Amino acid sequence: MAAKKVIYDTDPGVDDAMALIFLDAAPDVELVGITTVLGNHRIDTTTRNALFLKDYFNIAAPVAQGAGKPLVIDEGEPPVYVHGSNGLGDIPLPDIIRSKPHELPAHRFIIETVRANPHEISIVAVGRMTNLALALREDPEIAALVKEIVIMGGAFGYRGHGGNVTPVAEANIIGDPHAADEIFAASWPIVVVGLDVTQEAVVSLTYLEQLRDTAGRAGQFIWDISRFYENFYFQSTGLPGFPVHDSSAVGYLLDPTLFTTRAGPIRVVTEGIAIGQTIQMPNNRSFPPGNAWEGRPDHLVCIDSDPERFLKLYFDTVVAASRRDN
Amino acid sequence: MAAKKVIYDTDPGVDDAMALIFLDAAPDVELVGITTVLGNHRIDTTTRNALFLKDYFNIAAPVAQGAGKPLVIDEGEPPVYVHGSNGLGDIPLPDIIRSKPHELPAHRFIIETVRANPHEISIVAVGRMTNLALALREDPEIAALVKEIVIMGGAFGYRGHGGNVTPVAEANIIGDPHAADEIFAASWPIVVVGLDVTQEAVVSLTYLEQLRDTAGRAGQFIWDISRFYENFYFQSTGLPGFPVHDSSAVGYLLDPTLFTTRAGPIRVVTEGIAIGQTIQMPNNRSFPPGNAWEGRPDHLVCIDSDPERFLKLYFDTVVAASRRDN
Ligand SMILES: [Ca+2]
Ligand SMILES: [Ca+2]
Repeated sequence: MAAKKVIYDTDPGVDDAMALIFLDAAPDVELVGITTVLGNHRIDTTTRNALFLKDYFNIAAPVAQGAGKPLVIDEGEPPVYVHGSNGLGDIPLPDIIRSKPHELPAHRFIIETVRANPHEISIVAVGRMTNLALALREDPEIAALVKEIVIMGGAFGYRGHGGNVTPVAEANIIGDPHAADEIFAASWPIVVVGLDVTQEAVVSLTYLEQLRDTAGRAGQFIWDISRFYENFYFQSTGLPGFPVHDSSAVGYLLDPTLFTTRAGPIRVVTEGIAIGQTIQMPNNRSFPPGNAWEGRPDHLVCIDSDPERFLKLYFDTVVAASRRDN
Repeated sequence: MAAKKVIYDTDPGVDDAMALIFLDAAPDVELVGITTVLGNHRIDTTTRNALFLKDYFNIAAPVAQGAGKPLVIDEGEPPVYVHGSNGLGDIPLPDIIRSKPHELPAHRFIIETVRANPHEISIVAVGRMTNLALALREDPEIAALVKEIVIMGGAFGYRGHGGNVTPVAEANIIGDPHAADEIFAASWPIVVVGLDVTQEAVVSLTYLEQLRDTAGRAGQFIWDISRFYENFYFQSTGLPGFPVHDSSAVGYLLDPTLFTTRAGPIRVVTEGIAIGQTIQMPNNRSFPPGNAWEGRPDHLVCIDSDPERFLKLYFDTVVAASRRDN
């Protein structure tokens, strides 16, 4: 099987870094580009962090810097209480980063890469949806040329999981709700990996210790960057361990059988108290006509998963790659 | 145990009639008033139907006519495709109804009854929340004098049940979202029995046939009014039987152990595509400060139930009453 060509759209971010390590370790993935967006930190910092990760893990793919502000709403303050003041759990970072950003801005890099590889590019988007929306605005025809888009974002209320910013809104979507609503309006194949399933994929301390002790440099790095992140989750939930949101989207890319999906058009609330909520109209239900979902294309939402098997895939993939590297 | 004094706020409606029969049959309930509101039909029709039910079942409680339009939004068209053109499944109704409405409008009837029976009145509200909101506007102090309010309304996304008018909105709440948001802002004890649990309480054809053949006049009546309603559900879901929404609220009133509840403030979306959605901020989760739920009082939402035991309670209660009447 030919390797999947992947653009990784990201705002590193601790769990973004973990997902990048996962992507880089997967044998059947060819990472063709990393595009950055604001979110877990300002755009300068998420881009710096992406370049640092590229250097640290000798990743060939270029890093293209993306949107520094959402389409309509304000940028907001970066959540330094989750990802640390440097966005990577406050591990020491070098003063000088060797790699430089790609000459193109992220949304144009996406357009050119998709046009150069029609029907071959998978996009894994684990930050705000701003870059995707800008690419779509500039060149709507790419919607027919993208192979698939797997996003980490949103919350659909399954198993009692609501949002993580408000009771209904998840961070990546509420960070640019207009961009998200625009990308769901387009007829490209989107799979949404939201909090409904990512909240179920919780790594334990034991898991992280084993990864640290087994997966070489990557394992130690994941341990180091996640100390701050883990403490945030412990302070807010009282539970050890934390969910691996962004890596769950990579999990879907590598093995869709890890998830159960539901089809139907999706809209995003762009105003009021529910701003940032993702709402799917499931195809297996009927509603009175004239509603806001009519005429919109279907997308898939993950409504169930096998978190144990997913976490084993992550572990085995990262460990196997670390052995190849030695 | 003294009987519970109950005001039944309703828009009959087929399942409203079924719930009224349940209330009337319950030995530990003293029905002190029926208040009507628009919803399943226009206010003239729901009031006519309430008066007809009062006469047909020799119910002593007066019927006070309530709101004919929502606080802010338009009235909308009555859902005659669900409840029939007369609101009671198109059974033949007498031309002349013996009983007349109470002299007070519903919201003032609620105020006077609550003030005359401080801390003793339970309100079971199974229509739009307009009458309750009007009562609260006119006399906010009643909030401290009401014993409890059990409402049928809303949807919180549990077990995959969304709304029934849009993917997130339930009919009673979207019918007057501003009224609902106002009543949840008040510090009176509200329990919300929403689609999350009422969609689980589905009566089968066999159940209805047994009720018809065992519960005398009430059983036959329930069978007759539900032919049209059942057909609507069958057409839209392909499944026989239908959920008994309003009766589930009466079920909570009679036996709260039938349900599992979750505490936290509740808001209602009053604009945009999510209009009419009920959103609770659960007390067992933490969210960033400055959100729309802060400073609002807690209310209870039913998130789980025992539908078999509930349906048995309905059956046994109505059958026992029919035997007392003979
Ligand atoms: Ca991210
Ligand atoms: Ca009703």
